[in-house]
Amino acid sequence: MKRTSSAHWNGNLKAGKGTLSTQSTVLNKTQYSFGTRFADGAGTNPEELLGAAHAGCFTMALSATLEQAGYTAGDLDTKAVVELDPATLTITTITLDLTAAPIQGLSAEQFNAYAKGAKENCPVSKALAGVSITLNVKY
Amino acid sequence: MKRTSSAHWNGNLKAGKGTLSTQSTVLNKTQYSFGTRFADGAGTNPEELLGAAHAGCFTMALSATLEQAGYTAGDLDTKAVVELDPATLTITTITLDLTAAPIQGLSAEQFNAYAKGAKENCPVSKALAGVSITLNVKY
Repeated sequence: MKRTSSAHWNGNLKAGKGTLSTQSTVLNKTQYSFGTRFADGAGTNPEELLGAAHAGCFTMALSATLEQAGYTAGDLDTKAVVELDPATLTITTITLDLTAAPIQGLSAEQFNAYAKGAKENCPVSKALAGVSITLNVKY
Repeated sequence: MKRTSSAHWNGNLKAGKGTLSTQSTVLNKTQYSFGTRFADGAGTNPEELLGAAHAGCFTMALSATLEQAGYTAGDLDTKAVVELDPATLTITTITLDLTAAPIQGLSAEQFNAYAKGAKENCPVSKALAGVSITLNVKY
C-alpha cells in the first residue's frame, strides 16, 4: 500500500518558501517555511505533521489492540509533542500523552499494558527507531 | 523547540472514527479512519502525513545545504512515496523522488552529492531509522 505526498521549495533557507501536499488533498499546497518551522510563522512544519502521524497511528493501533482483547475503545485522546533540538537539528523525543475513558471490566493495569503494546508496535513507532518515545497514560 | 499535535478516536478499528489536529490548525479535527488508511475513504492517514513531513524536511534541508555551498535553490520538487506492508503493519520503504531546476555553475554530480547529504542528515530522515529510504534525483 503506497501513499504519496509532495513538497515544493524555491530559494534559500530563510527567504525561500515551500508548500506541502498530500494525496488526500488534506494538505493542498499548504505553506511552510523557515518561519513556520523554527519561528512562529502561520503555516505547518514537518514536526507537527510527524506528530499527527504518530498520534494517529498509535491511537488507531490501541483501538485495534483493545478490540482484539474483546473491548471497545471509548474516547481515546492522544497529544503528541515532538521535540526538535535546533542546535543539532535532531528530533530528540516524542511524548505521547494519552487520556482514555474507562472501559467497563478493564483494569488500569491491563489498559496500560495494551497502551504500551500499541506504542511499541504501531507502524509509525517502529519507523521512528531513531527517536526516544515516551508514553503517559491517564485512564 | 516543541510542536504539538493530537489524535482523537472512539470505537473499534473498522467502525470507529478519528480526527487529527495540529498546533497550526492546518489539520483541525481532520477525519481519519480505517477506511481512509487501508482503503480509499476520503480523509487523511498517518502514512501520507509522514510522507509530507519527510518530503518537507528533506527539501528544506537541501535548500540549506545548497545555500551553505554558495548556491541558491531554484525549484525543488520532492514526491515522497510511503509504502506500508499491511500484512506486517510495517512501513518498509520511503522513496523520495526529487526533480530540481538546474543551478548555474553546479554540476549534476555535485548536486547529487548535496541531495544525498540532505537525505541522510535531515531531522526526519534521522528519526526514521527504522525505514529504508531511497532517493532518486532528476537534475
